[in-house]
Amino acid sequence: MADLDLAESHLLGWLSTVGLDAHYVRAEGDYLYRLDEQGNEIPVVDFAGGYGSLMFGHNHPEIVALAQEMLAAGAPVHAQFSRHPYATELAARLTAIVSRETGEDETYNAVFANSGAEAVEIAVKHAELDRALKVAELQAEIAEHIEAARAAVAAGTASVPAEAALAVGLDATAPEPVGLEALATRITEVNAARAGVEPLLFALEGGFHGKLMGSVQLTHNAAYRIPFAALGTSARFITREDLPALPKIFEEERVDLLDLAVTGNEITVVSRPLPLLCAFVLEPVQGEGGIQVLDAESAALIQAACAGAGCPIVVDEVQSGMGRTGTFLASTGIGLRGDYYALAKSLGGGLAKAAVMLARSSLYRPQFELVHSSTFAKDYFSTTIGLKVLDLLEADDGAAYRKAAERGAHLIEMLRSVQRDFPDVVRDVRGRGLMAGLEFQDQSESGIEELRQHAEGATLGYALAGKLLRTHRVRTFPTASSPNTLRFEPSIHIGDEEVARLESGLRDVCALLRTQDGAGLLETTPAA
Amino acid sequence: MADLDLAESHLLGWLSTVGLDAHYVRAEGDYLYRLDEQGNEIPVVDFAGGYGSLMFGHNHPEIVALAQEMLAAGAPVHAQFSRHPYATELAARLTAIVSRETGEDETYNAVFANSGAEAVEIAVKHAELDRALKVAELQAEIAEHIEAARAAVAAGTASVPAEAALAVGLDATAPEPVGLEALATRITEVNAARAGVEPLLFALEGGFHGKLMGSVQLTHNAAYRIPFAALGTSARFITREDLPALPKIFEEERVDLLDLAVTGNEITVVSRPLPLLCAFVLEPVQGEGGIQVLDAESAALIQAACAGAGCPIVVDEVQSGMGRTGTFLASTGIGLRGDYYALAKSLGGGLAKAAVMLARSSLYRPQFELVHSSTFAKDYFSTTIGLKVLDLLEADDGAAYRKAAERGAHLIEMLRSVQRDFPDVVRDVRGRGLMAGLEFQDQSESGIEELRQHAEGATLGYALAGKLLRTHRVRTFPTASSPNTLRFEPSIHIGDEEVARLESGLRDVCALLRTQDGAGLLETTPAA
Repeated sequence: MADLDLAESHLLGWLSTVGLDAHYVRAEGDYLYRLDEQGNEIPVVDFAGGYGSLMFGHNHPEIVALAQEMLAAGAPVHAQFSRHPYATELAARLTAIVSRETGEDETYNAVFANSGAEAVEIAVKHAELDRALKVAELQAEIAEHIEAARAAVAAGTASVPAEAALAVGLDATAPEPVGLEALATRITEVNAARAGVEPLLFALEGGFHGKLMGSVQLTHNAAYRIPFAALGTSARFITREDLPALPKIFEEERVDLLDLAVTGNEITVVSRPLPLLCAFVLEPVQGEGGIQVLDAESAALIQAACAGAGCPIVVDEVQSGMGRTGTFLASTGIGLRGDYYALAKSLGGGLAKAAVMLARSSLYRPQFELVHSSTFAKDYFSTTIGLKVLDLLEADDGAAYRKAAERGAHLIEMLRSVQRDFPDVVRDVRGRGLMAGLEFQDQSESGIEELRQHAEGATLGYALAGKLLRTHRVRTFPTASSPNTLRFEPSIHIGDEEVARLESGLRDVCALLRTQDGAGLLETTPAA
Repeated sequence: MADLDLAESHLLGWLSTVGLDAHYVRAEGDYLYRLDEQGNEIPVVDFAGGYGSLMFGHNHPEIVALAQEMLAAGAPVHAQFSRHPYATELAARLTAIVSRETGEDETYNAVFANSGAEAVEIAVKHAELDRALKVAELQAEIAEHIEAARAAVAAGTASVPAEAALAVGLDATAPEPVGLEALATRITEVNAARAGVEPLLFALEGGFHGKLMGSVQLTHNAAYRIPFAALGTSARFITREDLPALPKIFEEERVDLLDLAVTGNEITVVSRPLPLLCAFVLEPVQGEGGIQVLDAESAALIQAACAGAGCPIVVDEVQSGMGRTGTFLASTGIGLRGDYYALAKSLGGGLAKAAVMLARSSLYRPQFELVHSSTFAKDYFSTTIGLKVLDLLEADDGAAYRKAAERGAHLIEMLRSVQRDFPDVVRDVRGRGLMAGLEFQDQSESGIEELRQHAEGATLGYALAGKLLRTHRVRTFPTASSPNTLRFEPSIHIGDEEVARLESGLRDVCALLRTQDGAGLLETTPAA
C-alpha cells in the first residue's frame, strides 16, 4: 500500500507526460529548487508564482522571520471567539488602503476566510443576507402602509377608487365596489408569490471565482462547473458585448411588489421593486480566463448598471490584488469600486492561508457575524502575516507597487518583443503589472499529430510549459480556461536575468513551433 | 479610522456582554494566557480547544519544531502542479489507518483542502461527479441496448410484443402495431425527462458540516442555513426516528429509466434505477449539535439503507476524527464505514490549516483531479504537519488514542459526578473520549429576568461560559446548535488538575443556578 500514490496520482501521471512532474525541495525568492541525480540543487525560475500568491517571492526573509518569531513566542493560533487585535488592525489597514485608492472615505468591514474561494462565497453569502433582509424590510414597510390605508379608510379620510382595484387585477365593475380588505388580501397574495422568486447571481464570462460547491457556479469554465451544476444556484454569465445592455438585462428580471399609499383622499396602488439582484461577481483582471484585463469602459458600464438596479458588485481581487498590477486593487486602476472585495493568495505572504472578504460599511449587516464563522479563519498566524504583507507593500511610500508596475512593464515589453518576432506563433500578449499572459496561436491545424492532439485536448499550454521547464528551467503554466495562454506572475523581485531566461525559453519554443519541430518541443527526456 | 473595529466588532461587543472578550497573547498546551493590568500572564485552561483542533494542545513542541525546521529550510510551500511526496505519504498513511480501523483493506484516495467545510464540499462534489458519470454510463448502456434491439428486429430474430408498447404507455391497440422505432423514441423521450431530476442530498438532523454556500445547506441549524437557502441545493434532513424508515424514504425517491432487452425472440422493456442519491452526510459525534453521539444501531440502519439504495455515505470527522474519541475515526467505534471521510481541525496540529477528503478507491473517479483544485491546498506546510500529527497519534503503538479514551473517561466521569449532585440544573452529560458536553436545564422559567432572557435568546451557554472564564479561568463555549450545552474538547495532555479546576467552576455555576443567584452568575466585572 505504501507504494500507491493516493494523492492525485492521475494528475501527476498526466503532468509527467509533459515533463511537469518535478519534485521541488526548496524555494527562495523567484526560484524553486529540484535535485539532480547527484543530489545537487537545480534552480528553476518560478513564473507561476503560486498562481499569483507570491508578490514577494518564496520564503521572503522578513515574512519567514515573523513566522519564526510567532512560533518561538507561542502565538495563540487557535483563539476563536476572543479579541483579535491583529485582525482588527489588518481590517483597519485594508480599509485605509482601499479608501486611498478609491478616493472615498467609506470604511469596509472585514470577515476572514481560509482561501480565495471561501472569501468569494462569504461575499455572496453576505450579499444574499443583505438582499433577504431588504426583502423583509420592504415587506414590513408594505404591511405598515396597508395598516395606514386601513386606518385612513376607517377614519373616512380616504376611499378605494376603481383604479386601485384594477391595478391589482380585481374586477372593479362587480356589483359591490372593491373594498380595502379585498385589496389588501390581493396585494398580500401577489406579494407572497413574488417574494419567492429566486435571487439572481451574475458573473462575467471567462471569470474564475473558485471551485467550491457555490463558487464553482460562478466560475465560467464549463469543465469545472457543469458537472456540479446540480449542487448550487447557477449564475448568469454576462459577456463583454452584453455590457451596454446590462441595464436592460436587469430590467427584464425586475419583479415589483405591490404597495399601498394614501394619496390625498384616495388609496393608490404603487409598485416597489423587489430586491432580486444578489450580486455581480467579477475580476478586474481575469487570471484563469487567460489574463484578460477588464477595460475602464466595461467597468463603467457595470458600475452604472449595478448602481442603477441596486445590484452589489463583488470584486474578486484574489489573484489581481495585493499590488500585483501596480495598485493594491487592480480594480482601482480601471475606476471600478466594489461593494465587496475578496482577497487571498498574496495576502498570505507565500506562507499562510490568508483570505478576507471586505464589505462596504453602509451595506454591512452586523448580524452576519452571528451566522457565519470558520474555525481556521481570523487566526493569529495568517492575519499577522497579512499585516506584514501590508508593511512590505506600503513601505517606502508604496515602492512595492511601483516596482510591480515597473517589473511588469519590463516583462510585458519582453513578451511583446517575442510576439513581434513571432506573430505567426504568438497570437496575443496581455496583462497589467505582474499579471502577464502570452497566448500562442492555435495548433489544431498543425502538421504534427502530437501538437494537434494537444490543441484538441486543450493541453497545448501544458506541453509548452513542459518544454520551458525541461530545457530552460523556467516554471509557468497555462491559464485554466485559456489553454493556449501561458501566465507569468513572478514576484516584484524578479530580475532582468530571470526575464531574459524566460525570453530565451519562449524564443526557443516559438522557433520550434514555427518550424513545427514536434520532437524538439515534446521530447520529454529530462534535461541534465 | 484606526479606532474603528471593522473585524466583527458586533460579535466582539456581544462577547463582551458576557465577559468572553479576552485577549490572549500566548498559548501552550491546554493553556491560553492573557495579561493582567500589570502585564503579568494569567493562565486560562482551554477546554474549547480550537473547537476540536487541538488534540495535542496549543503549540506542541514537536509540531512547532517541525514548523521551525520547514521555515529554516526554505520549504516550498507553493509548488502547485508538481510532485508532492509528503502529500502522497500522508494519503498512504491515512488509508492505512482507516484500513486498520475498519478492518477492510480497500484504499482511499485523498484530495486536500483548506478547511473542514471545504473537505465536506469536495466529498459532495466527488459524489456528484460519480453520480453524474453513473447516469451517463447508464444512458450509454441503454443506447447500446436499443441498438441491440434494433439489430435483432432487423435480423428478424426478435419482435416487439404488445406488452412492450403498453409498458411505455403507447397504445398497443392502434391499427398499426408499435414498432421498435416508436418504442425507442418513447424510451429516449421518457429517459431524457427523468434524467433531469435533481439529485438528492441527505443529512442528519442536528448536523453541522460547515458554513460555505454549499456546506451550509447541509448544516441543520436554521439560523445558519435558512438565510442562505437560495444559494445552494437544499438537503433533506433525516431524524434519528426516521432511520428505520430510511429504505422507504429512499425508495419513494426512486426514479427508473427505461431500457430494452432482447429476451428470447421478444423485445422487453426493463426498468433501470436512475442514480439520484448524491450523498448522505453525517457526523459520528455531532459536535455543534450538542455533542450527540450516534449509536451503533442508528449507524447500522444508515449503512444498510445506503448500501441498499446505492447512496454514498460522507462521514464528517472534521471534529470527531484524529483520535479525539479514542480511535482515529469516531465512526469506526460505532461500526460505520464511510465512502467518503472529511478530516480537518486537529489534522493541522494546532498550527496549519490542514484538511483532506478521502474517497473509497472503488468509487474514486481520477478525472476529478482535472476539474477540482485549490491554490492553498496540498501545500508542503500543512501536509507535513499532518504527517507529524499522525506520528504523534500512532507513536508507542497508539498511546495517544488510549490517552484520549482515558482522559475522556476521566473528564466525562467528572461531568457525571456534577450531574449527579445537581440533577436540578444539569440536564445531561454526553460524549465519547475528549468530546464531551454538559447540558444545563432550561432556564426559560427562571425567576431571574436576565437568565430568562439568555434562555430565550439561546445565549445561556455563553453567559455560563463567561462566568467560568471570569471567575475560574476556564475557557469553554456552548455548542452552536444546542445553546445550553457546554463543550469540553481539551488535548490528550489535559491533567487531573485542569479537570479539577473545571469541576470546581462547574460546581460553582451549578450552585449559583440552583440558588438562582443571577448577580453571582452574570456579574461581568473582570476577575483580578
